[in-house]
Amino acid sequence: MSAKEIPYKIYLEEEQMPTAWYNVRADMINKPAPLLDPNTHKPMTEEALSKVFCQELARQELNDTDPWITIPREIRDFYRMYRPAPLVRAYCLEKKLQTPAKIYYKFEGNNTSGSHKLNSAIAQAYYAKEQGLKGVTTETGAGQWGTALSMACSYFGLDCKVFMVKVSYEQKPFRREVMRTYGANVTPSPSMTTAVGRRILEEFPGTTGSLGCAISEAVETAASLEGYRYVLGSVLNQVLLHQSIIGLETKIALDMYDVQPDMIIGCAGGGSNLGGLVAPFAGEKIKGNSNVRLIAVEPASCPSLTRGKYIYDYCDTGKVCPLQKMYTLGSGFIPSASHAGGLRYHGMSSVVSQLYHDGLMEAVTVNQTEVFKAAVEFARVEGILPAPESSHAIRVAMDEAIRCKETGEEKTIVFGLTGTGYFDMYAYQRFHDGQMGDYVPTDEEINKSLEKTVNI
Amino acid sequence: MSAKEIPYKIYLEEEQMPTAWYNVRADMINKPAPLLDPNTHKPMTEEALSKVFCQELARQELNDTDPWITIPREIRDFYRMYRPAPLVRAYCLEKKLQTPAKIYYKFEGNNTSGSHKLNSAIAQAYYAKEQGLKGVTTETGAGQWGTALSMACSYFGLDCKVFMVKVSYEQKPFRREVMRTYGANVTPSPSMTTAVGRRILEEFPGTTGSLGCAISEAVETAASLEGYRYVLGSVLNQVLLHQSIIGLETKIALDMYDVQPDMIIGCAGGGSNLGGLVAPFAGEKIKGNSNVRLIAVEPASCPSLTRGKYIYDYCDTGKVCPLQKMYTLGSGFIPSASHAGGLRYHGMSSVVSQLYHDGLMEAVTVNQTEVFKAAVEFARVEGILPAPESSHAIRVAMDEAIRCKETGEEKTIVFGLTGTGYFDMYAYQRFHDGQMGDYVPTDEEINKSLEKTVNI
Repeated sequence: MSAKEIPYKIYLEEEQMPTAWYNVRADMINKPAPLLDPNTHKPMTEEALSKVFCQELARQELNDTDPWITIPREIRDFYRMYRPAPLVRAYCLEKKLQTPAKIYYKFEGNNTSGSHKLNSAIAQAYYAKEQGLKGVTTETGAGQWGTALSMACSYFGLDCKVFMVKVSYEQKPFRREVMRTYGANVTPSPSMTTAVGRRILEEFPGTTGSLGCAISEAVETAASLEGYRYVLGSVLNQVLLHQSIIGLETKIALDMYDVQPDMIIGCAGGGSNLGGLVAPFAGEKIKGNSNVRLIAVEPASCPSLTRGKYIYDYCDTGKVCPLQKMYTLGSGFIPSASHAGGLRYHGMSSVVSQLYHDGLMEAVTVNQTEVFKAAVEFARVEGILPAPESSHAIRVAMDEAIRCKETGEEKTIVFGLTGTGYFDMYAYQRFHDGQMGDYVPTDEEINKSLEKTVNI
Repeated sequence: MSAKEIPYKIYLEEEQMPTAWYNVRADMINKPAPLLDPNTHKPMTEEALSKVFCQELARQELNDTDPWITIPREIRDFYRMYRPAPLVRAYCLEKKLQTPAKIYYKFEGNNTSGSHKLNSAIAQAYYAKEQGLKGVTTETGAGQWGTALSMACSYFGLDCKVFMVKVSYEQKPFRREVMRTYGANVTPSPSMTTAVGRRILEEFPGTTGSLGCAISEAVETAASLEGYRYVLGSVLNQVLLHQSIIGLETKIALDMYDVQPDMIIGCAGGGSNLGGLVAPFAGEKIKGNSNVRLIAVEPASCPSLTRGKYIYDYCDTGKVCPLQKMYTLGSGFIPSASHAGGLRYHGMSSVVSQLYHDGLMEAVTVNQTEVFKAAVEFARVEGILPAPESSHAIRVAMDEAIRCKETGEEKTIVFGLTGTGYFDMYAYQRFHDGQMGDYVPTDEEINKSLEKTVNI
């Protein structure tokens, strides 16, 4: 093999793996706006935040000055069990599309949680353990984050209490069983174990639950137990910081082969994967060293960047977490039940929001039937059966590659393949059976939702 | 990193990947007995076999003289999409067990089929395509082999007809949907599409099917369609040949770090993974260059090597395939329905059978509750949620490592982690809920089954 020949998969050597996370906020000229206390509307202090998060995570949440945060050795040891994640050259997809474009994807699905969520779960569990906590609580919808956190807590011997939206608990029993395998305590929400759960069950006896309710139960449980904290898998600055490992590994792998990407594409729900993937590239762009396009892909049914407002809003439906300035559809916004492709969050990470606001990032929306078409085409030539979320990025990468075919441009396209779809086969089934539709909220729906939110 | 320090995962470079499969039969002093025609009881000729298999696969099936068979470039290209599979040093498991033993596992689960089956599926699909065939038919129970074959056929544009045991088709819809994603035609068996299916449905209107019936439907369908062949995912010599890629990569990785294994452990159903994993090590042993222990692990509920007879028997319940000399429990043997851990095949690959018969390999049995205990313990420290089948090897590797702790011996243990358990969560659920039992057939049951088989 000559020095320039790109293998199918680029794996870093263990000694090439990053030893520090990259904190892009330190290099941003316009910093994301501070988190506000939901009651006083004053900026959250480290002290106030550390009642919600572990001390070190509260510090990371507020730190917008240090560009590099050392990754503790214990976390790096865990990373070495499933990382480095390969950067894959999609030779087969290129051939299938007959495109002169060069397509790469960073594949984060080679671990049992099936997604990139583990990168932050292990960090959050580590700092909880370090602080001498007994356990953590969280909520989960489809179960990716709950699975990742269960694995991380099991590794450090922490208790893990997951409130799983009841409809998912019943309809997706396999994710639940994976969490149980890792020793997590999984409770269908709403439950009788919390005051808020009992109140909701009394009011709506037959309810199948919601993410908002599950968050409230998790927060209440953490607050009521000695030595527990509530943890979140996306949106937060600390999560994007941990996820920068994705972008750092990608950049090292590209640099090894002198590859300059023309665009980096990532799916965007709360922004954890996208923010992590683009971080080092955004840093270069801010410093004027790069013109790479950064592209966020949203579902048309939940278009926070492209159709939301850039305002302060609640991060959670229960309105107990700090307020954050971000692109949002309103904290009460719930995408249509017919939307199967994930990325259902009403807002967007404040880092991603600010990058987008400053013109450093673009955003596009895609319809879910087009997303599943791309997913199936990708699976058939590249082997990997992608998660619906990841397939949003696949769709746009394929569209860009097809455009290159038309123009003859040999662009280099990099996208994030955040995970596998092994636990999403019900959505695939609906697609195969022709039962999947597309859904786009009206302006009226979005405005109505935004009216109900705080606006300070 | 010093030259001797072993990383968590050893990945070969692409140029280190094997370019030929290793055919251990060529080096065996006692060759496996020839396949016999089920009607005449005479050895099968290449001509007769090529009515069942593609020409080149028939040749490979009978070839016991060439030690190396070149892997065609098209297959190597496909292998590069998901191989090399990592050889993982189980540092976390070692620490958990506090053992001086050094534990390695070859992980074959990093692909969408979730197991090693893809290694042979892609080869069989390639030769079918090369011969100008239109498609292949097969049967599948739990769905691992069906998934692998669907992926392989999709890659080469071949039609793929899978007969899936009806009870699995209904109870495991997700595997079915994965196959559909890869464009396979999946039919619940028994079906009205074949004469044998119609006959069985008439006789037993409410039947939920069996593997034997699905095989018969797949064979009938292949025979009745122009340009189709029936393909199998285990037991056959050709399958073990393709699976030798597992052992070859393992040996190269160990040699890179001058590691001499004391034992190689693999789970044994039909023998495809075990035979592939041990092939190059068995070759060294035959030549007198190695004393490594080779250990087959069977479920106590389906103990072909440890409690079966070494005789000629049918490979299929329908008695249409050639006769093979092997350790068998009788082709009508069906393990208890309470057995959830896979490896349900009544016989054993003739290569593995002969190696065992000649004392080159040992065999042990394990109970399924002990297997699932090992699976959960492994998942919690090593991250990967293992397939029940693979967990048989984990159980014995852990037992050997615990023995080392007692004796203080620093043995090097290598085992095959054939796949992931993401589609086996129902079995895990039964285990978590305490609903899983152990089952060991009586001597009477085994003898009764063996009496019904041919014995020539």
